[in-house]
Amino acid sequence: MPVDPSSPLVITSLAWVPEFARGHVRDYRARWACEELGLDYAERLVGTPRPDSYYHDQPWGQVPALHDGDIELFESGAIMLHLAEKGETLLPAGAQARARAISWLFAAMNTIEPLMFELTNVNVFARGEEWAKLRKPSLYEFLGQRLDRLADSLGDKDWLEGDFTIGDLAMTSVLRVGEGSASMKQRPTLTAYLERAKARPAFRRAIADQLKSFEGHEPAPVAKDGEQQ
Amino acid sequence: MPVDPSSPLVITSLAWVPEFARGHVRDYRARWACEELGLDYAERLVGTPRPDSYYHDQPWGQVPALHDGDIELFESGAIMLHLAEKGETLLPAGAQARARAISWLFAAMNTIEPLMFELTNVNVFARGEEWAKLRKPSLYEFLGQRLDRLADSLGDKDWLEGDFTIGDLAMTSVLRVGEGSASMKQRPTLTAYLERAKARPAFRRAIADQLKSFEGHEPAPVAKDGEQQ
Repeated sequence: MPVDPSSPLVITSLAWVPEFARGHVRDYRARWACEELGLDYAERLVGTPRPDSYYHDQPWGQVPALHDGDIELFESGAIMLHLAEKGETLLPAGAQARARAISWLFAAMNTIEPLMFELTNVNVFARGEEWAKLRKPSLYEFLGQRLDRLADSLGDKDWLEGDFTIGDLAMTSVLRVGEGSASMKQRPTLTAYLERAKARPAFRRAIADQLKSFEGHEPAPVAKDGEQQ
Repeated sequence: MPVDPSSPLVITSLAWVPEFARGHVRDYRARWACEELGLDYAERLVGTPRPDSYYHDQPWGQVPALHDGDIELFESGAIMLHLAEKGETLLPAGAQARARAISWLFAAMNTIEPLMFELTNVNVFARGEEWAKLRKPSLYEFLGQRLDRLADSLGDKDWLEGDFTIGDLAMTSVLRVGEGSASMKQRPTLTAYLERAKARPAFRRAIADQLKSFEGHEPAPVAKDGEQQ
């Protein structure tokens, strides 16, 4: 759907980020959900440093935050759930199917993503630091165990519960944090799952619109951590 | 509420854990939510190794899982949300208040708890390993920044949005992971917040019933990681 400045749905994104972060800032999760649902949304771009008032909208100054008319919320997980509740496209009507989709959403955010945060830390932000080198073997082992169980659950299905749900949107966006890592490359089932997600037109439009939002904005200092939520 | 074997709400817990983990296994979050809501629940205890069939209920073999009549779900975050939706005690009816409570629930699970996992790792499971010692300064700094913002949001209120919600239940259960750490001791606002939560009769009953569930069960081998979700 086109970005529409008059939409009551307003997604907060960053005015500018360095090259390596483009297409990965977490507001794309909210954009992607809107695209899957066929909902227009407006953008609100925030710079660095954040306006003081922004810390009410998002306590850590991160993105995304969402305004839905008079309702304001934060955390990409809460925003994905809120958007998914607008229809049955991402959250099936049946009670059991709904419960499984939401279970996978939380599994993405609380069981897989914490290890992906650590993976990014040891491979990117803390690369070269001694602790990061020493931490890698045990992290890879533990992450690998979690990913193997996830691959078992997926099996030969396209999506975790058959049809694509908000649980898949969340889970593939979390796997994407580790894209290109040995942990993902060694698991063709999960790599193919991520590729299927990235081939969805809604995903492609969401990324394209995030990239477009950075155009014409001057570079500004960006903190090492804490840019994304 | 008494544990009632005939309840349609069935919380999966562990049959036995070592002393240090008692009162901390994550099924207490589900028990606590039930107690706040005045709902009876039944217990289903699983041992180590798990029955193969359990990996469908919980893909990583962790606890809790929840059966609510015919509905099955997993992940403590999903279970807290599911239970909270049963009334207005933990999830206010107003759309904005509901959105904030759910935002805090996800903030607990995805913004604070990943760092608490690392804190437990460097201070407990990997204590004595070189990488854990070297990782501490940067972890403490980053966690501290997150906790300071959380304390700012709490301010002088008892609970994050005034009245106690599922967001507070989740957030205090996550802060409890770091209880006794320097990161918590240095922040009296958050320590007092956690103490208020622990003084709630519903919390005390939940912990007491978890401890009771271990009685009379023989010790069994327990994996180092992956016991809790």
